[in-house]
Amino acid sequence: MSHRNAVIRYELHPQLAADSHPVAPFELCELRLMDDANYPWLVLVPRLPDARELLDLDQTQRHLLTDEIDRAARTLRDAFHPHKLNVAALGNLVPQLHVHVIARFEQDPAWPSPVWGRVAARPYSPEALVERIALLQETLVT
Amino acid sequence: MSHRNAVIRYELHPQLAADSHPVAPFELCELRLMDDANYPWLVLVPRLPDARELLDLDQTQRHLLTDEIDRAARTLRDAFHPHKLNVAALGNLVPQLHVHVIARFEQDPAWPSPVWGRVAARPYSPEALVERIALLQETLVT
Repeated sequence: MSHRNAVIRYELHPQLAADSHPVAPFELCELRLMDDANYPWLVLVPRLPDARELLDLDQTQRHLLTDEIDRAARTLRDAFHPHKLNVAALGNLVPQLHVHVIARFEQDPAWPSPVWGRVAARPYSPEALVERIALLQETLVT
Repeated sequence: MSHRNAVIRYELHPQLAADSHPVAPFELCELRLMDDANYPWLVLVPRLPDARELLDLDQTQRHLLTDEIDRAARTLRDAFHPHKLNVAALGNLVPQLHVHVIARFEQDPAWPSPVWGRVAARPYSPEALVERIALLQETLVT
């Protein structure tokens, strides 16, 4: 008779898995694209079990996270030339720690408000999704 | 006849000056309290001229900023025991780089939405403001 393994392992929250698509594995985080064509919108999810707040990271993890936020932001800037970048760790609805990095334009449907709760998500078509992820991956490596 | 000094110096944006009150000087940032009693709401403003995006910081500044965000977040946690912390650099309306650190409660007037644009700010009374800033300053030093 086996007993359950009590070790807690990192697993992507089902809501984040449903709302976003993998782009690249970073050292600390999964880099994912939100399935909302209204905005170029990346999410970074640290692969740490049970992390809810930025406060749950130690200093080394925190510095690495901020370097990865910087890399995600540079990717959006280089690929889309936005008017503004928005960076946020909220987590009021999905408790797993995740950081939004969003390219904003004065013509986008929520501008100048934050994007959350403004207009319904507009999922990518399969073709647009493949193209968008390819563009992000190409921009990442340059 | 003197000519104008062309060196650009850091100056707090007038909108941030109007909306918030000084709490403490950190190494990189000014720590300020938003004048909205709906939420315990801190803002960190890096004393860097012309910074608009997190991308405008070099790695040393970025790591220092994240350490100061951590300190502000611990202060809110220890003083108010919130349900969740929200951390965000948006800047769609006020271009000067500033980072919000907000203590959220399931009973607050915007929960679970982000705070921006939900309900009108509720300014502190002079007495409540003095008390709140004193509590934050005491919590910072412990």
